[in-house]
Amino acid sequence: MTDLFALHEARLRAAVEANATRRAFAAFQESPSRKHHPEGARQRGQAAFEARRGQRLGLVAPGSRGWVGGEVSPWTGEPLGITYPSLALEPALAAARAAMPAWIDAGPQARVGVCMEILARLESRLFEATFATQHTTGQGFMMAFAGNGANSLDRGLEALAMAWAVMSGIPERATFTRSFGHGPVTLQKRYRLRPCGVAAVLSCGTYPAWNAYPAVFASLATGNPVVLKPHPACILPMALAVSACQEVLAEAGFDPALVQLAPDTADAPVARELVTHPDVRLVDFTGGQAFGTWIEQNARQARVYTETSGCNAVVLDGADDLDAVLAVVAEGLSLFSAQMCTAAQNLWVPETVRDGGRLVAHEEVVERLVARVDALLAEPAHASAICGCLFADSVARTVEAAAQGEILRRSATIDDPTFPRARTATPLIRALRADARELAQREHFGPVSFVIRAPDREAALAGATADARRFGAIASYAWTTDDAFRDRIEDAFAEAGASVGIDLVGQRPMNFAAAYSDFHVTGLNPAGTATLTDPAFVADRFRVVQSKREVPGEA
Amino acid sequence: MTDLFALHEARLRAAVEANATRRAFAAFQESPSRKHHPEGARQRGQAAFEARRGQRLGLVAPGSRGWVGGEVSPWTGEPLGITYPSLALEPALAAARAAMPAWIDAGPQARVGVCMEILARLESRLFEATFATQHTTGQGFMMAFAGNGANSLDRGLEALAMAWAVMSGIPERATFTRSFGHGPVTLQKRYRLRPCGVAAVLSCGTYPAWNAYPAVFASLATGNPVVLKPHPACILPMALAVSACQEVLAEAGFDPALVQLAPDTADAPVARELVTHPDVRLVDFTGGQAFGTWIEQNARQARVYTETSGCNAVVLDGADDLDAVLAVVAEGLSLFSAQMCTAAQNLWVPETVRDGGRLVAHEEVVERLVARVDALLAEPAHASAICGCLFADSVARTVEAAAQGEILRRSATIDDPTFPRARTATPLIRALRADARELAQREHFGPVSFVIRAPDREAALAGATADARRFGAIASYAWTTDDAFRDRIEDAFAEAGASVGIDLVGQRPMNFAAAYSDFHVTGLNPAGTATLTDPAFVADRFRVVQSKREVPGEA
Repeated sequence: MTDLFALHEARLRAAVEANATRRAFAAFQESPSRKHHPEGARQRGQAAFEARRGQRLGLVAPGSRGWVGGEVSPWTGEPLGITYPSLALEPALAAARAAMPAWIDAGPQARVGVCMEILARLESRLFEATFATQHTTGQGFMMAFAGNGANSLDRGLEALAMAWAVMSGIPERATFTRSFGHGPVTLQKRYRLRPCGVAAVLSCGTYPAWNAYPAVFASLATGNPVVLKPHPACILPMALAVSACQEVLAEAGFDPALVQLAPDTADAPVARELVTHPDVRLVDFTGGQAFGTWIEQNARQARVYTETSGCNAVVLDGADDLDAVLAVVAEGLSLFSAQMCTAAQNLWVPETVRDGGRLVAHEEVVERLVARVDALLAEPAHASAICGCLFADSVARTVEAAAQGEILRRSATIDDPTFPRARTATPLIRALRADARELAQREHFGPVSFVIRAPDREAALAGATADARRFGAIASYAWTTDDAFRDRIEDAFAEAGASVGIDLVGQRPMNFAAAYSDFHVTGLNPAGTATLTDPAFVADRFRVVQSKREVPGEA
Repeated sequence: MTDLFALHEARLRAAVEANATRRAFAAFQESPSRKHHPEGARQRGQAAFEARRGQRLGLVAPGSRGWVGGEVSPWTGEPLGITYPSLALEPALAAARAAMPAWIDAGPQARVGVCMEILARLESRLFEATFATQHTTGQGFMMAFAGNGANSLDRGLEALAMAWAVMSGIPERATFTRSFGHGPVTLQKRYRLRPCGVAAVLSCGTYPAWNAYPAVFASLATGNPVVLKPHPACILPMALAVSACQEVLAEAGFDPALVQLAPDTADAPVARELVTHPDVRLVDFTGGQAFGTWIEQNARQARVYTETSGCNAVVLDGADDLDAVLAVVAEGLSLFSAQMCTAAQNLWVPETVRDGGRLVAHEEVVERLVARVDALLAEPAHASAICGCLFADSVARTVEAAAQGEILRRSATIDDPTFPRARTATPLIRALRADARELAQREHFGPVSFVIRAPDREAALAGATADARRFGAIASYAWTTDDAFRDRIEDAFAEAGASVGIDLVGQRPMNFAAAYSDFHVTGLNPAGTATLTDPAFVADRFRVVQSKREVPGEA
């Protein structure tokens, strides 16, 4: 049998090193450009995706007694017609438990080798996954390939490398010699890493791989079987991932039931039953704050890692080139219709904003921002590529519901000739006063943002950080030309337990988060409990069981 | 100001290295013998302890409005008469919170330096702490010095070294350069470690420092203020520790309110209110399973680490020299009246046990064991030194309640002429059948053990591991002369999520657990959720908040 660890060791070690230095690193090619891929790779990926329409996607699913699935492409409005074996909870968990002993016995190195091979398998099928992502999440092709594709594989490798590093810090064996009063005694000690139990991973509907891969690999590498429950509107990308996991596991001589899919529909959800099952000891959840909190409160038998939502802010004090910044912000509001956990929602704009040598009035800043958005999205095909689709009808309703009060920019649909039936909405921008901003103190998932008028930059910073602390924030942003204020921004967000990106112009898009370098979610504010990927994200997924034997004759 | 980190760096690095290799290491002298300590150190320690009797022990205690304390020496039956400033919960937590920013800003290295100095301060006062331990817990002098003294300081250093190692793995800063399509962009990133909040540490009445020190140093080093709530019968040793913490913190220019004492009495307990307070984000608890479970269920706002109780087993298959093993077991049943989390309770003895070349019948094994205990404790002063006292009346009641059914050895008091009023009890040993052992499936805290008669060694191993899995076990023990069975013992306990020591004869006492080498508690069975000290014990006590600044001109 191939030594999968040895095969992938160089890539793994590079990732471990990147985690430690947090310098720029990517193991996976994020450009779909022809020059980086084998001839015809994209076409074959598209054909593979198309061939799945209207079919059953077979997976190892112990005890399954039916087929479920009701995905509809946000681009075409047409059902994909793909169904998946339904989860039979008790048999599924029994099979997962039964698969554990051999997986545990294999040890960390063999498990990490299998996980590395799974990543390579997913890499080799990235074009198919890209079309699957596009037609479930509503992402544009580029984002589906780079963001939910290559970058998410890097995020998975990041977590896997962290798990490997933490596990490697515990020796398998030790020889212990000391005197207990009557000459030296020698003990041979053995330290076995044992998993916590079955891990449930609940992925979201818009960017499923980004958080699911880290959770899957952190749990699997540390010995826990995984049940992956995708959002009912976005099953296919996760089903393809589970299929690759099962395939590699079987090839390596392990039980494919170590990774199972739990597809469901909005009418018959399985999440609550799954995450509160006594056998489920780890839960990773990505999605809304309400259900995230429900899980934290109710999945008492499990260690719960959540990445939910908040009200991400922009604090705009000034820039040498304000237009460049407004272009960045306009792109951030538009990209994938702001259906990203790192998208900004609350734009804190003081009465005046510095633009190089002059001060610009609030109204002018807003006008220029709106004009930037308009210009960016003027051409429908281009707008469509940037904004993608709304992944669900509920997002369209969110935009509609927000379209009241003082509207600075109206939302509209995009008439992309290629996808005339796509469910789309350009950014809605509303005005709010800092002292009447209740609406901005929760997430409006989708292309909805608020320009919050603050008397000055200090009030803007105070408001943005107060809301981050109280209502959560995953990513925050600020621009300034003042060194002292820049330091205060850093300190204020740190104290609020929120990460911040400052003066981002060349980093595009502004809400890009780099695997290996950027910690994602702090766990210090209501937007989540987990950090991708800090040592805590992996260390608590396994335990050490020790045995010691006294060596006779050496007593 | 002295650079405390530099001052103690060599000791810290040795501890980090010991954690990684898990070889024998001790930073603190565990022998109270004159040759290891300054002339008169013991006498000065005793005098310092005696001088505290009947006095108020002053501590920084914001908002405190009274003095509490009702400790009684288990050795003399006399009240210590020492009182401590009562906890005023809201002012105490407000002061703790107020002390945080400077402690966070100091950074990991400065915090670890302060913690190292606290350990050194505690080391310098170990004799006083030993008398304080003796006259609250009921431990004998030797154990109070070595076990709750030096070994616990090592356990604290072990956790501190683990915290330092995990924090050191995250760089403070990184320079990130990559292209986003238009030439290289450079970001200066900063990673700040931020604590979770106030940490509550609840120590037990019999061995307070052993688990409290790791928790205190793991939390404090990672930036969290600590409120230490001791068992009401055993406040003084923890008050002395808090006093040392406050002294060193103040000397180093930090707010002493970073470590506070929360003394209470059995009539007016503060634990529930403390551990469920919204500001308390970490809870470390050592004590009974019932209250441990209550905390796990109710302290929802906090990350909870527990070390509770189980039904530790001995599996006795055989030995080359059975008498040597029975002597070890007899000592284990007697030492500090089995009021240790690692003491064995359930002695699985098959119908026959191998003793070198011959098989010995169950009845003979039991007789020889009882004779060993009798011989060990024949001389009252020696028995008193080994058994110590029962730390509370409740333990005496536990022994009384268990004195029914088929009694193999009766418990009796010890007539130590030095301490005629000591509350004592020698080991009670009862017989149980394997198929009627409900009584053995919970902890009887104190000198109570059960010889469980099993048809054969396989049944003994199966029963012991089944009970460990279901009811918890902190330490288990086995003796065999059969290599294949030894392997099965290791595997069976590992699968039950329980640690096991095999063939221990030269390691004395059998329930010794070595800091830096032995993982204590697995977190995989009902005896607790925390492991002292694995990476998970420290990694989840802090988070990373990140900021990144784009560097202009390099864009």
